[in-house]
Order: sequence, then structure tokens, then C-alpha cells
Amino acid sequence: MKTNFQNRRDFIKTTSLAAASLPLFGALNSLAQDSAPKRKIGFALLGLGNLSTHQIAPALQKTKFCKLAGIVTGHPAKAEQWKVQYNIPDKNIYNYDNMDQMADNSDIDVVYVVTPNALHAGHTIKAARAGKHVLCEKPMEISVAKCQQMIDECKKAGKQLAIGYRLHFEPNNLECVRLAREKTFGDVRVIEAGFGFPIGDPTQWRLKKDLAGGGPLMDVGIYALQATRYLSGEEPVEVSATTTVTDPVKFKDIEESIVWQMKFPSGIISYNSASYKVPGIAGFKAFADRGWFGLDPAYGYGGISGQRSDGQLIQLPQVDQFAAEMDDFAQCILENRPTRVPGEEGLRDLKIMMAIYESAKTGRKISLI
Amino acid sequence: MKTNFQNRRDFIKTTSLAAASLPLFGALNSLAQDSAPKRKIGFALLGLGNLSTHQIAPALQKTKFCKLAGIVTGHPAKAEQWKVQYNIPDKNIYNYDNMDQMADNSDIDVVYVVTPNALHAGHTIKAARAGKHVLCEKPMEISVAKCQQMIDECKKAGKQLAIGYRLHFEPNNLECVRLAREKTFGDVRVIEAGFGFPIGDPTQWRLKKDLAGGGPLMDVGIYALQATRYLSGEEPVEVSATTTVTDPVKFKDIEESIVWQMKFPSGIISYNSASYKVPGIAGFKAFADRGWFGLDPAYGYGGISGQRSDGQLIQLPQVDQFAAEMDDFAQCILENRPTRVPGEEGLRDLKIMMAIYESAKTGRKISLI
Repeated sequence: MKTNFQNRRDFIKTTSLAAASLPLFGALNSLAQDSAPKRKIGFALLGLGNLSTHQIAPALQKTKFCKLAGIVTGHPAKAEQWKVQYNIPDKNIYNYDNMDQMADNSDIDVVYVVTPNALHAGHTIKAARAGKHVLCEKPMEISVAKCQQMIDECKKAGKQLAIGYRLHFEPNNLECVRLAREKTFGDVRVIEAGFGFPIGDPTQWRLKKDLAGGGPLMDVGIYALQATRYLSGEEPVEVSATTTVTDPVKFKDIEESIVWQMKFPSGIISYNSASYKVPGIAGFKAFADRGWFGLDPAYGYGGISGQRSDGQLIQLPQVDQFAAEMDDFAQCILENRPTRVPGEEGLRDLKIMMAIYESAKTGRKISLI
Repeated sequence: MKTNFQNRRDFIKTTSLAAASLPLFGALNSLAQDSAPKRKIGFALLGLGNLSTHQIAPALQKTKFCKLAGIVTGHPAKAEQWKVQYNIPDKNIYNYDNMDQMADNSDIDVVYVVTPNALHAGHTIKAARAGKHVLCEKPMEISVAKCQQMIDECKKAGKQLAIGYRLHFEPNNLECVRLAREKTFGDVRVIEAGFGFPIGDPTQWRLKKDLAGGGPLMDVGIYALQATRYLSGEEPVEVSATTTVTDPVKFKDIEESIVWQMKFPSGIISYNSASYKVPGIAGFKAFADRGWFGLDPAYGYGGISGQRSDGQLIQLPQVDQFAAEMDDFAQCILENRPTRVPGEEGLRDLKIMMAIYESAKTGRKISLI
């Protein structure tokens, strides 16, 4: 199915999502899915934009270990609407000024931060100081320093911090990780990965550097970066990058498109792209000694599938990735074990993305060691 | 059809080739294909290795405007074999020492140079000084200076020099050029292109820097480079690159794999790869404002096909690209018009590839303006 997508939501969303109750992949998901949880973890959604409205809130309804317990919003009208739609008690409805009072509210265990990138640290820290665990959307923040501060504050509060890397819970992506780790086609040597879409509304925060921290690299390139990292199982040691802007009215202070390349300790090299201009950059391919495998599309909310050089298709059942991500975090909290997508994982991406931008700016290869 | 190829010849060759008599694409091939030529252009093949034996000599049998008139070889046994197989008169059989005597042989119009890269200039210059036109395999040579010398010597001799860029005569590649030029999906903004294969015999000249001039970039990456150039219709203004070697025994003085990126004057950016290590890197994709198109595989002797974002397939009839390339050069000579793949085209690629290597070596983005 090939489509031109008209906006970000349509683009990233594809066909209907299968039920979230499907077991996730392999050893990482070995928990008994049948046992009923003793109690459900209460989530408060902070920031009621498109993602919360169209993905996360519906996903919460499909979870096994979570419930939508509260909201934090600056819009009283939205508060009223959500209150009615999701039967949220008044006492669990907060705004950004009074959310510290959450400390006294045992209905809420986790705050899910779904605000523009540059607000993540402030909201995460407020939530941690109110004694809540935090699940924060990607990219974690817009600077390494702010990521570190988020980690430190959550640690100080004795609360977990997870980043919303939903593809760590997506069976087809996990299958590709398996093919890489088990060397089904031998050692992976070269990785191609990119993600892009033509961005719509020119007034949206994603186009403003002070709120977004950057352009398509920060928003969607991060998925391609993540893919190179989970396929290689390594951290890049050097990066170089080239940005472009052909529409300087729309792209005043962020890149329109970017290509970058990385080298990893074992000698793996990657070539990558991210774009707010063109449709169709949507997947990855890992090239190994005796064959290749990849997904295209790889990063959507559903409809993910891929191919292998032996002719086999990669088409494991789709899951609601948000439901899977939240259920996993809830189980981590219930069982007091660490999340697989901690703040440190978000920090690593920020460090790399900042180096990518530095390379684009200076024209030099940037070392990460 | 996905296959692991065991050697270079099998890799680049795919399914059976269709007849060479199919008309080539569009305006570039508007010549009447029906009129019988007054006389056929005589080709002498210089260098009787795999490519001459398995591709070029058979292709010559399919041409309309060419004939295999002579050979130049350092191996008397090969000379004997070819003489018998192709009914070549003794007077048209030369070695590298006596090929200057070709000057007196009116059977031979063109020398097709099919030797290791670093020998191209010497052989081209000898042929030009003997008063022959030259068709020289890619890459043109291993240095910019030697390419320039080839151009100068052919010009001095009043003879044409063409480089064996067979894909300029391949209908599916030309169709992609048309989609780009006619902006069928809007302006092209981002191009992904790569080419690689796991190289076999560790003793072959392609692995020796003094003969090959470089590694997979020079041999197969040049196809990806060409693709970015004919899809963009522009010359890159800056390049950056990263090389890798994971098998230092086999890859003693050339790169094993390479990734590079380029920026073009209109703002187009490309991300590219070439490899002697892994199979499956075999195509390109051009991402434009309203969709994308690409070929995979894009560069083989046959079996080329591709896709467009509107769901249409790109699957024009395969031609014998060598026959098409030689017939075109013969017609250029017969009609005294310039080839579309002159020495200057080969020189441009060498300049870019040298900049790519310089970037990989220095870690700096290299400007080409």
C-alpha cells in the first residue's frame, strides 16, 4: 500500500491496529499475560494534544496493567471534555500550576509527559518532585544537560523515568533485532535507515527551534537513529551530517531534511536520513555478510512489515505499541524492576543528535568517544 | 527474486537478457532503428577478461552498427581462442607492444579498453595515437590527472572518447531520469543510492589499490554516484564520507565498505553506500515533494525494475546495455556527433570520488566548488 500522507497523524498511522493483547516478542516479554494484576497503575496524561487524544488515551483502554486516572492540561475546556469522556474525577484533574498537589493523590502513579520537547524537563521534574514515576515522550528533551537533570531528579525522587520508545515493544522491530543478534544472515555490516514525511501546518511547534530543539532529526530521525542502535547493538563512535533547506520561509530555524552517517565500534557503518519535506522515507535495511533484512514501513503506529533476502516476509502481528509500552512500564513499577527504555537511553540519543547537528554546522566528523 | 550472489559476475548478471533490438527510451534514442547502416564500425577489444568474454563480445554480436574486428591481448593462447571463436583475421590481432601498428589498419575504428583501472590511460592514449576512437570502461582511471590526459590525447588525435556508462542506455534508469526531469512527483529533494556485493577471490586486481585506485566506491559505488547525478541533473558541491574495514587481511589497502553523503546546488541531498562485503545493496530511491520512485535492482546487466509511490511498477523491457552503448557510440562516429558519455563525464566522477576519499581520510566535508 503506497499513499501520500497529508499530515503527520495520517502519515504515521496506517491500517487498523490489532488488539493489544497479543503477546510481545520473546524473552523480553516472558511475563505471564494471563494473571490478573492485583492493582492497575494509574496514569495521568500531561498534555492533551493529538498524540494523547488519538493514540495514548485510546491505548490506555486496551492496557491490562494501566488505567487513565488523571490529566494535566492548561485548557479548562479540554479538561471538561476528557472528564466526561473518560469519567475522570475532578480531584484527578490538574493544570500546570497546581500539579505539585498530585503528591497527595494516590490514584496517580505515573505521569506521561506528552508536551513539546523543550517542556519535557520542566514537566518531568515537577512530576518526580510530586513523587510520581514518569514516562516521557521522545525526544527526551532538547539538550543533554536537561536530559541529565531529568535523570537526576527522578533518581533523587526514587522514581522511574522511561522514554516513549514504542518500537522497543513492536514485534517486527524486535524480530529484526533478533535477526541481528542471532546473526541469522551473519554479522551486520552496513545499515540504511531513514524516516520522513511532509510536515503540514507551518505554525506548529515542531517547526520552532526553541520548542522542538531541532527539525526532522529530533522528531522522526530519532527513529532511524534508534534503529541503527538496536540493530547494531552498539553506540556510534563518530558521526557526520549534512542538512538542507529549500523552503526558507517554512524552515526558518530548523533543517528541512538531513542526511547523516555513523560508524560503530565493530566497524558497522550506517547511512541515514530524516525529512520534513518528502514522503516515503519510512524504513531500514540491515546488510549482513550473507544477506539482508529490513522493514518498510518500520516506524508507524501499525502496518509495519518487512522483507528478508531469503524471500521470507517479516509480518508479525501488529500490537498497540502505546498500550504495550505503558503495560511494560506498569509491570516494571509493580515488580520494582528497571524499564528497558530508561532516561539514560533518551540521553544517549540526545548526545548523538547534538553531535550530528554539530557536524552539520562545522563540516567536521564529530567523535563520540 | 532475492538471491545471494557468490561472485561479481553472477551478482551483476541477473535473469536472461531480452533482445538488444528493443528501441531505447524516448528522445535520446530517436534515431531510425530500421535503416541498415552503410558500414559497421569495427571494434577492437583490449583486455580479454571476464567482462570482454562474457558480456562485451556476446553483446557485439547483437549490435546493428558494430562488429568485433580485432583484439588486443597479452595472452597468445587467448588470441588463438578468440581468433577461432570469432573468426578474427591474424592481421587484426595485436598485443600491448605492437598495438601502435593499428594505425595502418582500417578495419578497426574503435578500441574498447577493458583493462584494470590504472591501465586505462596508457591503453587509451596508445589507441588514440594510433588514430582510433576509444570506448573505455568505468571508472575512467584512478586519478584526475590521468583522466585529463586521456581527454587531451584523444582531442589531439581528433578522436572521440567515451566511458562505458552502460546505464545511460538502460530504459528503466532513463525512465527514472524522465520522472525526475518532468517532476512527475514534484521536485526531487533527497536521494538514497548504494551498490555493493561480497567480493570473491582475494587475489584479484580489484582489491589492489595500485591497479584499482580504490575499493567498492571506484568499482560499484560509481553507479550510485552516477544515479545521484543523473537523477538530480546536478553536480555535487560538497561531500563527506566514512569508510570501514572489518577484514584487514582481505582489505589491506582499500576500503571494505563506504558511506557518503552529498549536497547539490538546488539543495538536494543524497546518502549513499558501496560495499565489497555485503549483498543486497542494489538500488536507488528518489524522494520528491509528492512521492518517490526508485529501482532495486538498479545497476545489473539485466533484471532491472522498480517502483513508484503511486503503486505503478517501473519495468520497461531489458536491453543488452553493452550492445546499446556500443551501437550509440558507433552512430556518434558515423554521424560525427558527440557521445552522451564523454571523457569529461568520467573525469567528473573521478573528481567527486577523490573528494569522497579525501573526506573519509581527513574527517572534513570537502567542497567541490
